[in-house]
Amino acid sequence: MKFAVIITLKKDVLDPQGKVIEQTLEGMGVNNLKNLRQGKYIEIELNELDEKKAYSAVEDMCKKLLVNLIIEEYKIKKI
Amino acid sequence: MKFAVIITLKKDVLDPQGKVIEQTLEGMGVNNLKNLRQGKYIEIELNELDEKKAYSAVEDMCKKLLVNLIIEEYKIKKI
Repeated sequence: MKFAVIITLKKDVLDPQGKVIEQTLEGMGVNNLKNLRQGKYIEIELNELDEKKAYSAVEDMCKKLLVNLIIEEYKIKKI
Repeated sequence: MKFAVIITLKKDVLDPQGKVIEQTLEGMGVNNLKNLRQGKYIEIELNELDEKKAYSAVEDMCKKLLVNLIIEEYKIKKI
């Protein structure tokens, strides 16, 4: 069973890396950028047939290691 | 108009960062991991009402800056 985890900075947290990408794109001539934020993407494949169990295992990994819940939020999707 | 870009390493490219996360999770007692790969996630908001134009602008950004097409592949989704 395979899951995608998308980790993004919370709305009010500054994203310097995203800002740098934004400025670079603008420097390259892109003039219709409104906003750009960078996050992380993790694909996790589990040996687990029960979807509910697998989902909660992934959620557990997010809370214990992958996500800094103070400044980040996450979404889990089955893929 | 808002797009999500997911950038992942191609299948045959080694992902040392993903491996480290995998090993760390295993060290923490997760025993049903089959595979884990890390990628990047970028949210781009554009001042552009024409969806086709906006999509191709994002594709252009991917090819010119965001993605290393030799080792990475990307997916663009309207969100």
